[in-house]
Amino acid sequence: MEKVVLAFSGGLDTTVCVKLLEEEYDLEVVTACVDVGQPKEEVEKAEEAAKNLGVKKHYTIDAKNEFANEYIAKGIKSNAVYEGYPLSTALARPLIAMKIIEVALKENAKAIAHGCTGKGNDQFRFEAVIRSMSDFDIVAPIRDLNLTRTEEQEYAEKHGIHISSDKIYSIDENIWGRSIEGDILEDPVNEPPEEIYAWTASSENAKDRPTKLAIEFEEGVPIAIDGRIMPLFELIEEANKIAGENGIGRIDTIENRMIGLKSREIYEVPGALLLIRAHQALEELVLTKDEILFSEYMSTKYADLVYNALWQEPLRDDMDQAIDNMQLRVSGKVVLKLFKGSILPLSRESDYSLHDIEHISFEDKENDQKEVEGMIKHHGLQAAIYQKLNK
Amino acid sequence: MEKVVLAFSGGLDTTVCVKLLEEEYDLEVVTACVDVGQPKEEVEKAEEAAKNLGVKKHYTIDAKNEFANEYIAKGIKSNAVYEGYPLSTALARPLIAMKIIEVALKENAKAIAHGCTGKGNDQFRFEAVIRSMSDFDIVAPIRDLNLTRTEEQEYAEKHGIHISSDKIYSIDENIWGRSIEGDILEDPVNEPPEEIYAWTASSENAKDRPTKLAIEFEEGVPIAIDGRIMPLFELIEEANKIAGENGIGRIDTIENRMIGLKSREIYEVPGALLLIRAHQALEELVLTKDEILFSEYMSTKYADLVYNALWQEPLRDDMDQAIDNMQLRVSGKVVLKLFKGSILPLSRESDYSLHDIEHISFEDKENDQKEVEGMIKHHGLQAAIYQKLNK
Amino acid sequence: MEKVVLAFSGGLDTTVCVKLLEEEYDLEVVTACVDVGQPKEEVEKAEEAAKNLGVKKHYTIDAKNEFANEYIAKGIKSNAVYEGYPLSTALARPLIAMKIIEVALKENAKAIAHGCTGKGNDQFRFEAVIRSMSDFDIVAPIRDLNLTRTEEQEYAEKHGIHISSDKIYSIDENIWGRSIEGDILEDPVNEPPEEIYAWTASSENAKDRPTKLAIEFEEGVPIAIDGRIMPLFELIEEANKIAGENGIGRIDTIENRMIGLKSREIYEVPGALLLIRAHQALEELVLTKDEILFSEYMSTKYADLVYNALWQEPLRDDMDQAIDNMQLRVSGKVVLKLFKGSILPLSRESDYSLHDIEHISFEDKENDQKEVEGMIKHHGLQAAIYQKLNK
Amino acid sequence: MEKVVLAFSGGLDTTVCVKLLEEEYDLEVVTACVDVGQPKEEVEKAEEAAKNLGVKKHYTIDAKNEFANEYIAKGIKSNAVYEGYPLSTALARPLIAMKIIEVALKENAKAIAHGCTGKGNDQFRFEAVIRSMSDFDIVAPIRDLNLTRTEEQEYAEKHGIHISSDKIYSIDENIWGRSIEGDILEDPVNEPPEEIYAWTASSENAKDRPTKLAIEFEEGVPIAIDGRIMPLFELIEEANKIAGENGIGRIDTIENRMIGLKSREIYEVPGALLLIRAHQALEELVLTKDEILFSEYMSTKYADLVYNALWQEPLRDDMDQAIDNMQLRVSGKVVLKLFKGSILPLSRESDYSLHDIEHISFEDKENDQKEVEGMIKHHGLQAAIYQKLNK
Repeated sequence: MEKVVLAFSGGLDTTVCVKLLEEEYDLEVVTACVDVGQPKEEVEKAEEAAKNLGVKKHYTIDAKNEFANEYIAKGIKSNAVYEGYPLSTALARPLIAMKIIEVALKENAKAIAHGCTGKGNDQFRFEAVIRSMSDFDIVAPIRDLNLTRTEEQEYAEKHGIHISSDKIYSIDENIWGRSIEGDILEDPVNEPPEEIYAWTASSENAKDRPTKLAIEFEEGVPIAIDGRIMPLFELIEEANKIAGENGIGRIDTIENRMIGLKSREIYEVPGALLLIRAHQALEELVLTKDEILFSEYMSTKYADLVYNALWQEPLRDDMDQAIDNMQLRVSGKVVLKLFKGSILPLSRESDYSLHDIEHISFEDKENDQKEVEGMIKHHGLQAAIYQKLNK
Repeated sequence: MEKVVLAFSGGLDTTVCVKLLEEEYDLEVVTACVDVGQPKEEVEKAEEAAKNLGVKKHYTIDAKNEFANEYIAKGIKSNAVYEGYPLSTALARPLIAMKIIEVALKENAKAIAHGCTGKGNDQFRFEAVIRSMSDFDIVAPIRDLNLTRTEEQEYAEKHGIHISSDKIYSIDENIWGRSIEGDILEDPVNEPPEEIYAWTASSENAKDRPTKLAIEFEEGVPIAIDGRIMPLFELIEEANKIAGENGIGRIDTIENRMIGLKSREIYEVPGALLLIRAHQALEELVLTKDEILFSEYMSTKYADLVYNALWQEPLRDDMDQAIDNMQLRVSGKVVLKLFKGSILPLSRESDYSLHDIEHISFEDKENDQKEVEGMIKHHGLQAAIYQKLNK
Repeated sequence: MEKVVLAFSGGLDTTVCVKLLEEEYDLEVVTACVDVGQPKEEVEKAEEAAKNLGVKKHYTIDAKNEFANEYIAKGIKSNAVYEGYPLSTALARPLIAMKIIEVALKENAKAIAHGCTGKGNDQFRFEAVIRSMSDFDIVAPIRDLNLTRTEEQEYAEKHGIHISSDKIYSIDENIWGRSIEGDILEDPVNEPPEEIYAWTASSENAKDRPTKLAIEFEEGVPIAIDGRIMPLFELIEEANKIAGENGIGRIDTIENRMIGLKSREIYEVPGALLLIRAHQALEELVLTKDEILFSEYMSTKYADLVYNALWQEPLRDDMDQAIDNMQLRVSGKVVLKLFKGSILPLSRESDYSLHDIEHISFEDKENDQKEVEGMIKHHGLQAAIYQKLNK
Repeated sequence: MEKVVLAFSGGLDTTVCVKLLEEEYDLEVVTACVDVGQPKEEVEKAEEAAKNLGVKKHYTIDAKNEFANEYIAKGIKSNAVYEGYPLSTALARPLIAMKIIEVALKENAKAIAHGCTGKGNDQFRFEAVIRSMSDFDIVAPIRDLNLTRTEEQEYAEKHGIHISSDKIYSIDENIWGRSIEGDILEDPVNEPPEEIYAWTASSENAKDRPTKLAIEFEEGVPIAIDGRIMPLFELIEEANKIAGENGIGRIDTIENRMIGLKSREIYEVPGALLLIRAHQALEELVLTKDEILFSEYMSTKYADLVYNALWQEPLRDDMDQAIDNMQLRVSGKVVLKLFKGSILPLSRESDYSLHDIEHISFEDKENDQKEVEGMIKHHGLQAAIYQKLNK
């Protein structure tokens, strides 16, 4: 019997897939769970679930630091935010796909399988990487058989499969964020119930006193919080904790999905919001106006590529070169105040600051103000000619 | 003696200007204060100050509704935000300049004067309009004589001029926002003291319970709060009050000024942040993805024109046509939760919603998921060819 | 038997479709040929071919003026050019689809059919309009059955169908341009043979003396050539003739198709190149720099929508509003010299010209040059601070 | 007496400057002529003119290869074209300024002088570099004294200065192009007389038979013509000759100058047009669609920086990193046909080609066309919902 490697989380979709792959596709299933910072219990549950399903071989792959250093770091340097969302799932999918390919090569498998439905973005993200970076066949049982969520549940019951947690929402988590969708959230007119949140305090329940903290950056990457130098993965864990306690990080948005549908999405991304905000505050100080405008353009494009399953696109690599060059000067310290859902930068400093305190001052006498007159006279010359013509 | 009309606020700069215009330029000064929603007392103080300075004629011009309906409405429809700042002063300057021109025509004046220094943006904004829309001479005494703030104060004292409030910061206010600069704020490393804020509660002192409110829009413009229909000017007043109480609206940024300098700026813009956020939340529901991307591009350009003293530029008018066309569908209701500095949209609805609840659902059976497979196979084709070549 | 309306040209693809629709889909075929300015003989041949195939009802629909006035005019005003190609086929498809829908409504048909393969762009363009603007089923026999060109030819022979001209290239023509693809042209290393061209003289065989001509525009649309006022359709015919004789209008490009493939394409677009070049030359005179930059951005986006089958996208309509507003001033005259494949504007004039001949002159004394000094001192301030820091 | 180093060409402006600097500014003048590929005679004439003016020290600096390899190469790789003009003068100015700074350092001068008027762009380009890269004072006598061209001529006569050639146009030349302005050319309604052209044959007088030539690129830079490998400077000389003979390279445009004025400009840039066109033809083959769109955006920005005197802006360096990364694959061969003013690419090939000849073919059976159906159904989904709503 030929082998298939299944990207496995232990949730409803991938659990149903194990059985479908065996029964409908006649394949031997190897499961693999890639740890990109989802809750520890999830990773363990996946292992256990695989065992319970009678899977012969299950892999647990620790990709936490690789995720932080090779993927999230790029997301921070580029301020990659898609329609307000800092791309947690989208950033992790290409890495997960790469790890699954490694397993498939090792296992000498014929195919790779995933549990994505045909409505979402993740099917694109998995398959784009698999098609670009390998020659494995791809199997997508839920989509192939056009199963609804209810049909999946019936199938699971019929096969005596017990899904540990009976979630009514579809949830995806990794260190960079948590997404919640489905059920009543599908209709944008419904207010999301408090129970869906796990990482962030509501602003009512957030800490009662503001938190002031200093974040240090080196070449665009955060390296320390309040003077404590940490590896990036741990720093993000810490940022999630601090920002979450302060009620920061909830996003409720109408997103444009890859297949063209609008979709209501809820995210919890406390650390991501905090670190990107701090990063931008530092950039405002050290980048020229031209650089800021250009990097905003790149940000949008970068996020678009990542969201739209184009991590492998060479343009991403091209942009990384420009971004890395700019980030050489994005070193310094930002102090921020967090409180009940809001982030306010209080102070920023950098050796590369372009802020010229003498020149800007109301007390400066050296630069003759009158010199500006000639500049003003020429400003908007074409608009003035246009207006005079129009009268 | 020839006449000059001075845009007059009663602050240090314009008070000193009255005397300078008389003594150094030998002109008869007519003062004019345009009411664009700054505090009532300011408008009255200006009138009184003019009298005390012996000015023969002082105009108080009520432009509050014109400002809301002809300027701010455009700012909302275009989501005009420059480097994070919703352009309060920048939006008011062209209107003030137009009103001053009207006075100058009526008074048969020879020139128009303003009290701007040579460091800021407002000199550009005033003069661009005056040069485009009239043929008056322009006099800028503070800049001409290259006076520092200290020198202005000395000059005032020497002439027995008493400036009512001895402000250490340079403040500008209108209904759309309040800006604070100068003194210790000039250095971005200094945290701003609480005392500088007037419109917004600190998040610590903000209301202890969240405020939920519904904002209704018609063709891109807010028309009602919690069902109460109001003229736009009053609606903004209300929005400022509600958002300010909830600690919303403080901005602390490093801005790129027109003359090229970076400048640390503090703004209070509670209503502007709230209304623009609500407006965007509704746009997410009714505009296509292509429209959203295009209108983000226009937003940046629109804000750039307004900030950079190019209100008269025909491109602004061109963009208004595209924006107004889009806004025909931006009608509907947004419910938001405000608390301690944070704004979270909870629900949105519109007759023009492009959200297709049946199609997006996990329970949809009608649209065969398998059909997406062909789309996925073609997605990222060039990136895949590139990656295969590179191996 | 239920009816299907087939967009019919009399070429191999659509001829084969008639038989396939009858035999494989069991439908009664109504054919319709929409005249958008392709050669008269083609339109007549289509009618004859339909008769020979035994089709009971054939429509010939004259859409020539509608194509010029409602579609091409927009293409000129927006300078819509996709990767160097002025979008002839892409502009005509939505109109053809609309006309086919009209026939299908009249005939009370069940479905609409087209002869597109699954490799090209036209399938998207037809179907997007049909799906947006009607509820008809869509049938695409060639694509459904995955037929190659050779298989189509075999099928035609087997059914005794004689295709009038035995073309080796796939050609599409309308008044705005002619496209040629297939056979040896598929490989970009092959030079295109002279025989493929029909509208343009090779530069060797082009007229031996240059042609100088004047084109007049009114609100962005060409209305006269050398003083002769003409309806737009006739003006384009004339422009095609004049430019073609002068060897103008050949394009040989590597295009990015909708399904992601790169494709070598040859176009003949003499009139389109001439009229768009003349239009741009006039815009350079009357639009501000900001407007030109913005309209370049819109051009790219506009062409992208049209090429990518998104004529129905509301953003197109939004952009039309901005474009029409700008074009109010694009009235005037451009003189150009055409010769052996090159176009050179010689002279341009307009009542809306922003060119200020006095101010620009080397002999101007009125504007004091020294005034520019202050502008220069501030120019590139941030770049200068950056460079000083870097030393 | 303190020293000033004057960028000297021997033309009217700089000749008058020598005397003005001595008489009005009381400075000892050192002249320097930087050779960036202007005609040899010009360089020699400058030396002679300096001698005749009694200048004690004159420098002739050969910067030809540095200009080609460090400046023009960047212009080719980025396809830097500002409003249709490939930036000859604009690219050379920063290099000339750097060389003048070197002389000023060596001569221990107090100041640097240039002969620019206050209307043009070159004053910005010189001064931005001098201010960024040194601390020398800057003297601009013509602008300071607000001299018109006629006044300069009178001044020259009065001082017995004889300007060798009595040019009626203002001309600037270097290896990358030649610009002609002034006199009757100032008015865009005037057709330029044939006499102003020096590098390009009119299309009437161009070679009577087409020239076919192959250009090879390595990492974005042309390295060989028809198989002959050459240093870049020589290759450009050759390209100028071949393209010029074929009537290629005349540009007649309305340009937006830095001070805001529109200006009619004539350029001769045969080699630049040819090499950039060939470069783009190769890029179409090897870059992805996303890369092409992004590099078009960078092109516009790059040209804008160079034209607008911002060579020193760090963004230029940032973009160079992205561009260089893309250009790693822009290696290969392009064959073009030149004739009477037109350039037509005939064939292109590269090891990095993304063109997939099998997949694109009408004869391909492997890729099932039917698979595209699902893609089409989802294409333009939002536009379709919008259209259905609108009915």
